[in-house]
This record gives sequence, C-alpha cells and structure tokens, in this order.
Amino acid sequence: MAAKKTIEEKNASNREIISERIRQMGEKLVAQIDAKDNPSLKIPVRGSSNVFYDEKGKKIVLGDKVARRYMFNVAHSRRFMQTMLVASYVKKDLLANNLTATLRDLYYAKKHTIKNSRENTIEEQKESDTAIVDLEVSLETFRERLHLRAEPKGRMAGDMTVLDRVRDKVDSIDLSRMGSGGWAVPSIVEQIEFKDVGVEYVLVAEKNAIFDRLNEDGYWKKNKCLLMTTAGQAARGARRLMQRLTEELNLPAYCLTDADPYGWYIYSTMKYGSMALAHESDRLGCPKLKFLGVSTSDIEHYKLNDVTIKAKDLDIKRAQEMKEYDWFKAKEWQREIDKFLDKKLKAEIQALSSKNLQYISNTYLPEKISAQDFLP
Amino acid sequence: MAAKKTIEEKNASNREIISERIRQMGEKLVAQIDAKDNPSLKIPVRGSSNVFYDEKGKKIVLGDKVARRYMFNVAHSRRFMQTMLVASYVKKDLLANNLTATLRDLYYAKKHTIKNSRENTIEEQKESDTAIVDLEVSLETFRERLHLRAEPKGRMAGDMTVLDRVRDKVDSIDLSRMGSGGWAVPSIVEQIEFKDVGVEYVLVAEKNAIFDRLNEDGYWKKNKCLLMTTAGQAARGARRLMQRLTEELNLPAYCLTDADPYGWYIYSTMKYGSMALAHESDRLGCPKLKFLGVSTSDIEHYKLNDVTIKAKDLDIKRAQEMKEYDWFKAKEWQREIDKFLDKKLKAEIQALSSKNLQYISNTYLPEKISAQDFLP
Repeated sequence: MAAKKTIEEKNASNREIISERIRQMGEKLVAQIDAKDNPSLKIPVRGSSNVFYDEKGKKIVLGDKVARRYMFNVAHSRRFMQTMLVASYVKKDLLANNLTATLRDLYYAKKHTIKNSRENTIEEQKESDTAIVDLEVSLETFRERLHLRAEPKGRMAGDMTVLDRVRDKVDSIDLSRMGSGGWAVPSIVEQIEFKDVGVEYVLVAEKNAIFDRLNEDGYWKKNKCLLMTTAGQAARGARRLMQRLTEELNLPAYCLTDADPYGWYIYSTMKYGSMALAHESDRLGCPKLKFLGVSTSDIEHYKLNDVTIKAKDLDIKRAQEMKEYDWFKAKEWQREIDKFLDKKLKAEIQALSSKNLQYISNTYLPEKISAQDFLP
Repeated sequence: MAAKKTIEEKNASNREIISERIRQMGEKLVAQIDAKDNPSLKIPVRGSSNVFYDEKGKKIVLGDKVARRYMFNVAHSRRFMQTMLVASYVKKDLLANNLTATLRDLYYAKKHTIKNSRENTIEEQKESDTAIVDLEVSLETFRERLHLRAEPKGRMAGDMTVLDRVRDKVDSIDLSRMGSGGWAVPSIVEQIEFKDVGVEYVLVAEKNAIFDRLNEDGYWKKNKCLLMTTAGQAARGARRLMQRLTEELNLPAYCLTDADPYGWYIYSTMKYGSMALAHESDRLGCPKLKFLGVSTSDIEHYKLNDVTIKAKDLDIKRAQEMKEYDWFKAKEWQREIDKFLDKKLKAEIQALSSKNLQYISNTYLPEKISAQDFLP
C-alpha cells in the first residue's frame, strides 16, 4: 500500500506543479494587460539555428535562443490564441480531472467557430500540435506531464515488476509472467515504478520478430535481461521508459537493429534524440544506450555474406549524410559507415536465422555481450 | 497444474497431427516415384474464380476447385520444390523442436544456391510465402499450426485470465491487472486458454487511442466487457483470438471504427475474412461480430456535423465498390453506404471528444449497446 500512495502522490504533485506553472503564465499575461502592455509569451526557438549536439551529455538539444510571441501582432495572434486554448484544455479539462487525452482529442475539443465570425479557432490538427509544443517548451516540461498521450508501441518481458497506475487503480505487473505476448508499453510511463528488479541489463530490439524469438528461447530468463521491442521507430513511451530504466536503475542497455542506415537511425534517435524533437532529448534520450548489432563487421565475422541485401541508392545517400552528423563522429561509427559505403550491403537481424533459428539466442548475443563488442 | 498439462498436451498433439500429415504427403510422393509416376500434389485453387461468399456461414471462402502441381512440369517444378522445402522446414526444424519462426526466418533458412548450379532455391521472400500458403491449404490447416508467426499487433484488458504457454512455461495472466498498457496480443494464440471469465461481451476498437480512453475510464470494469484494440487493420493473432472468444465462450462482440469505408473494411475483414485470404476465413473470421459504430446515422443523432471530414474521391470510389460486395448486401449496410454517398462526410471515433472526453464511455457506448443499435 505504501507504493500505491507514492504513485498517487507523485501524480497529484505533478498535476499541481504543472497547473501552477500554467496559472503563473496566465497571471503574468493578466499583469501585462493591466499595465496596458502587449501581452507576450517567451518561447524557446526550435529551428535548426538553435539545435546543437551536446557532446558531453550525448544528446541533441536546443540552444538558449528565445523568441517573444505577442498577442497584438498580426503574425502572432492566431498562434497566441491557440497556445491559450491548449493551456486552458490542459489545466481545466485534463489536469483538474486527472484525465489524459490524445493530440487528436484536444484538436476536436478546441476546434470551433469563433463567435460572430467565420473564423475557426483551429483549422488543421498540425496547428494545435504546434501550440502544444509551444506550451511544453515554455513551461519547461513535456507533453506527458501535460497529460497528453501519443500512440503507444512496444512490448516487454523480464524478471521485474512494474507498478502502473490508471487513475486511482494501481496494478502490480510481473513482467516475467506475460506469456508469449508481453506487456504492452503504454503511452505515458511517468507514473510507473520499478520493483523486484532481477535484471542486469536491457536489450531493446527494433523488431517484434526478434522479441518473439528471444522470448520463446527464454533468453531474458537465462541472461537476466529485460527484453523490449520498439516495433520499428521507437514511440515516446518506449523511449522515456528506456531512459528511466537506464538512469534510475542504472542498467546498461544494448540495441539490436538491422545493419543498415535505417537501423542506425532508430538507434541514434533512441540514444541522442532528433533534430526535430531537440526540445525533448532531456526527457526522451537514452545516452547510455549502446549499439550491439547487427554491424557491418558482423557480416564478415558471422559469415552472413550469402544473406545480405544490396544497398539502394537511398541507403547510400542516407549513410553519407549520417557520416557528417556530430553524433556519428566517433571513430568506430565512422569506420562502420565507411565499411557500409565500401561494401554497399545491408543485413537484417533475421539473417542470423540462416545458421539456425536459435543462433541469435545461443551464440550471437552471448558472444557479443561477453566480448562487450558494441558501437558507442 | 491440470491446466498446464492440458495446454502442453494440446500443443504436443497438434504438432503430432501436422507432422503426420506432412509425413503422409511425403509417403504419397514416394509411392508415386516408386510407381514411376510424375509426383504431384493436390492444391486448392485460390484465384478469384474459386472464391465465394458463404451467406449462411457469413464468411468469404474457397470453393472446391483443386489443381494438381507436378514435379516434372517446367511451369510447376520450381514451386513444387519450394513447397517441399517449406514442408521439410516446418516438420524438422519447427514442429520437431517445438519452435516457432517467422516467414522471413523460413526464407533465410531455406534460401541457398543449388549444388553444381547457379540457381537459388528461393529468390524473393514472396516465393516462399506462396509455398507456405500452398502447404497450409493442401494440409487443410493454417500457418499458426505450422508454427509460423506473423507480425503481432493489438492490446487487451478485462476481467478474465488467460493461460499462455511459451514452450514449457505456462503463465497465468490476469487481464484485469495490466495497468495502462494492457496485455500485448501474441502472434499465435492457439495455445491460449480462458479462465475466470468475468466479461459479458467483447468490444474491439480499431484505435489504440480508444483503448486508452476506455481503459482510463474503467469502462471495461463498469460494463463487464473484454476490451481489445487492433491498432489498425487486425493482425492474424487478434483475429483468431476474436474468433475463439466469440465461438468458444459464446460472447457477443462489437466493433468500433471510424465512420468511413476504411473502418467498414477493417470490420468486414475481421468478420467475414477477405478475398485474398479466403482460405483462412474458417480460422480467422468472426461471424458473430457486429458493427457498433461510428455510423453515418450517429453523425446526425449525436450532432457531430461540425467535426466531420469531407470524403475524398478515393473514399467515394471504395464505398461504391463495397456497396456491390455480397457481404454488404444487408439492407442496413446498403442504407449506411447510400447515406455516406449522399452526405460525403466521414467521422472519426475521436470526434465524440468534441462533446467531452468521457462522452464515449459515459454516454455513447452505453446508449448504443443498451439500444442494441448495431449494423449486422
């Protein structure tokens, strides 16, 4: 019962904190109005001119450029109004009632025709989405704390229990008893607490098929790992959970993708964040994550040449671009990318099945992990 | 422990049955070779000339046209060989070892260059995929019983326990304690057993967002339903599970999609099967499923006009095609499609959020279900 209390208290306190920040934002605006100033909001700039790679923190972050958005400015007023609509929805509809909603729900809820006009508050969802990001960054928080949900994706299993709260109900979920399905990673993971942690590292695979293979082989049990699949590009919930697992529990984490630029991209987004979401890297990045494979060197070492795929022009082009990114400048990655550009061959994780179905569980992963053969 | 035995016995017996069918198929071929006949396989025709709508069984099925595939026939021999490769992999690699694999694993495992030739056994995965379907239909079974996995998708929650087996480990999973994530529906659900069924119907939503909304509102608890989302077009595992829930437990099932031709298509595939997979409708169809909404009449009745979306030309074209399908000939569906073609307006489930976030849980669903206001 102690844990239940903690989870509920944490949630209540988060709601109060965010509500209070919104209230203060509103109060400042009212004070500006009372002083007959033009009401304005300070919003960090999110364009590429304000995006940097933080070498030490290993994340793609926003710089400190800030813009002011004014209510009485023809170029600003529509977005100003939309940011207010979002703030009001978050405070009064979501936080006050302890409810969560999707970006789409918010769009439907706040879209209407302004009285005595033919103007809609919001035309397209991308307008309210932008206003949500404006609010996130100006409140120095992220959307999950505003009780906004994204599309969930991913599954997990391992010797660990999570406590998860849905409103006033707290469930204790034993991730070692999830059968062949696994536990579905939720959209919002802020409320989750970890208990009875019997794992020594996290293994995250980009593919459902690999989760199924390793789960069937009892890999996570034998190797004391927490197994997760992101089912493609990682969703926000899975990324945040990876961060919490590696930071709060101090667990090492290894990533398993196809040997191609798309696999590297999935890995780098999970680890460093992305240019487009640089304002989120603090909350979603996972700097401790390492790239286990499949690497281009694995193709030679594990004699996978017969089951490679010829790289397409687009793959080559992406690899050339990625070679220039600051977060791929480590010499190990430069070598990896050069090798790819030289051979022009890709390999899928499932190429290991050409040896035998359990080769990945019995040979490949144990060898790589015991040799600590990772890319940074 | 009794249940554990049952699940394991069931699995062992399925493996024996399928192995035996493959053995018999092989024996027939050997007998043909011994008799100096041209070895051949009987394979049901899957083209549109052999696809029918079974009005009584409410499913799209194959007729009884059968073709013979010969080993010594230039047009057949490659596919004949591939079907043999698949049969051998299923029997010796999968069933004998009690392992499951994906279609991609099988492709990688059986692709190789034929000795003393420059010919590959399999060039593209679609060749082995076709050979798998050939084997499925000629053995009168479906791929999950051959231990072949598909991509899993979907989540569930409700007052029910499932027993799920992963090789020799049996987990008892209480679906009422899955937090905000839910249990991830696996690829293969043959081994699952239902226990402590405290639900009166199944509610399946096409969207993750609706699962999250209803789960947060405790809808499944208050209304004694099993809640599932297919996260888009339903995966095989989710479809088969829907069938088993409605047939074995005799539960009614209601489907919740957007009000548009794509929503109708998701519904009809779950219920009747599809033309392309007519050979699977017996195992994947769910004839008891009913369409709860959102319907075009709901747009008027619930005054959603302000939050509709204009139908695109492609939507109109699809609606016109669907109007002609045998399985949409019921007068209720003809009226629904006509109304759509008349108004040319679509509505998303989330349009209900324009009333208030919990309108769907507190008003829309209870009203529709208590009035039994469904389309057939």
